[in-house]
Amino acid sequence: MLPVVRQQVSALEPTLARVCCYHLGFTDERGEPSGAASGKLTRAALMTAAAQGLGLRPEDVRTPAAALELLHNSTLVHDDIIDADELRRGRPAAWKVFGAELAILAGDALQALSIQLVVDDPGPGRAEISSAFAEATRLVLAGQSREFTVRLGAGAGVAEYERIVEEKTSALLQCALVTPALRAGASDHVLAALRGAGRHLGLAFQIANDVEDIWGDPAVTGKPVRGDIQRRNPSFPVLAGISAAGPVSDRLRELWEADGTSEAHLREMAGLVEESGGRRTAEKTSRGHLDTALEHLGRAELFPAATAELTALFDRIVNRTA
Amino acid sequence: MLPVVRQQVSALEPTLARVCCYHLGFTDERGEPSGAASGKLTRAALMTAAAQGLGLRPEDVRTPAAALELLHNSTLVHDDIIDADELRRGRPAAWKVFGAELAILAGDALQALSIQLVVDDPGPGRAEISSAFAEATRLVLAGQSREFTVRLGAGAGVAEYERIVEEKTSALLQCALVTPALRAGASDHVLAALRGAGRHLGLAFQIANDVEDIWGDPAVTGKPVRGDIQRRNPSFPVLAGISAAGPVSDRLRELWEADGTSEAHLREMAGLVEESGGRRTAEKTSRGHLDTALEHLGRAELFPAATAELTALFDRIVNRTA
Repeated sequence: MLPVVRQQVSALEPTLARVCCYHLGFTDERGEPSGAASGKLTRAALMTAAAQGLGLRPEDVRTPAAALELLHNSTLVHDDIIDADELRRGRPAAWKVFGAELAILAGDALQALSIQLVVDDPGPGRAEISSAFAEATRLVLAGQSREFTVRLGAGAGVAEYERIVEEKTSALLQCALVTPALRAGASDHVLAALRGAGRHLGLAFQIANDVEDIWGDPAVTGKPVRGDIQRRNPSFPVLAGISAAGPVSDRLRELWEADGTSEAHLREMAGLVEESGGRRTAEKTSRGHLDTALEHLGRAELFPAATAELTALFDRIVNRTA
Repeated sequence: MLPVVRQQVSALEPTLARVCCYHLGFTDERGEPSGAASGKLTRAALMTAAAQGLGLRPEDVRTPAAALELLHNSTLVHDDIIDADELRRGRPAAWKVFGAELAILAGDALQALSIQLVVDDPGPGRAEISSAFAEATRLVLAGQSREFTVRLGAGAGVAEYERIVEEKTSALLQCALVTPALRAGASDHVLAALRGAGRHLGLAFQIANDVEDIWGDPAVTGKPVRGDIQRRNPSFPVLAGISAAGPVSDRLRELWEADGTSEAHLREMAGLVEESGGRRTAEKTSRGHLDTALEHLGRAELFPAATAELTALFDRIVNRTA
């Protein structure tokens, strides 16, 4: 994990520090040092590569990169409570270890710390970057709420799915790519290109993630299999399967709209998604969004080495979403 | 409630808007307009009065005043979940109506909206005010965590109590008083005086609030009686009662350190706090902090009309804490 993150989180009020250090994999349940996974730092890596592509040094975005990882993790801590997800990166989720009460405060503290870092970061574009972070936070929360309340399939379709993903997933990826441009004072053209890249990267990633929820290996994802379809969270493969015509789709829709969450029920749904072509459509759509993300990236005209690095990163994000 | 708050909260993602509008008393459970209490807007009133005392107009702090009320309410929404408080301002708490999941997101959204308003507010002192808000948020969360984990009496005493209150209560009151000074570009002398006023105002208020928790009228407070001592939250009258010598104090300490939360148990504790002099000490200490807060306020040398208004506000805050 990033040194700034470790240092800032360790300096929180001791109990909050303990919960956050556990969530971030720095420590175990008893507060002892741990070699657990900290997350892949995808957003920090995107920000650093984009910065270099704009002629900045990695240290020019060190603070906002840490802030973005904190923001992302604040949403994970609360999301696990909301979804009653007991596992995160292969370990018990923070709320399972410390209780929902402290996990609520710890998530709040990570959100507050994130914005405090950017607000107090004296580099160029401070006001614009603070504003981008505040907006990204607002969008993620809107997307989480929409995801929690909408059941796709019953009226709501691809447009609603895309809106949710743009809010809950793309917003932070866009923030990662756009922050260096704000720091570098880049043109509106570059900003628009990076925003477009982040938007489609989020869609490509989320759709691949939905596929992985159904057919992924829990040892790789660190989460139980089929959790999203069990909770009837928006899932692109299901949506695509339901939208196809024919008896397989009809049966899928029937199961999706019923409340059943037994193992047999979920397994049957997974089979129907595959049979209806939902999985294939999802994989194709994810690839399409990745291609579009790369097209947008190309329009930003970053230094070629950074474009190559970002291309590799985009690919890794989408094709190994664990 | 402030028009900016109503407008901003109504523009949130529809489900979040619904939860927040309910919490703020704009609407009832079904989303219909409601004349329910919205809270007393104490922090906005302090900010506006301090602004006028520094030669600013109320509209110069309209945005941060709204932001501070949003921040305060974000902590209330989460605090009710954490404390399992079922009543807020005489109505079912937001989590009781909409579930903890949406109440978590709604509290997050209020926190994010608060900082977004100050970050995007183009008035003078924007960076300093954003920084003050981020720091106040961090402090409130630290105080809430400390309050949740510490049981006073067992080792922790007045110093720990004061620290918690300075974080969870004084921080937002200080933010209210200091923000206009940052906007007006006031001297360090004025800033320090206003910080001191906010610090002691918070202590005076919180101690009076602790007294009201035990002996207040639920019809006035909108909360069940003795909730704090039932949960063994930090309570100054209990702490003062425990710290006195003699058999009454010993019995109080014994009950406080035991887990009993029956009606009879809590009523006996309340009687012992009174008998041990804990209530009297608390009332005296609260008055002492109020006097000190007013001394600090005097040192800020605001326009006399504003000082008079703030003096009346301080008194109302401490002596009618409902």
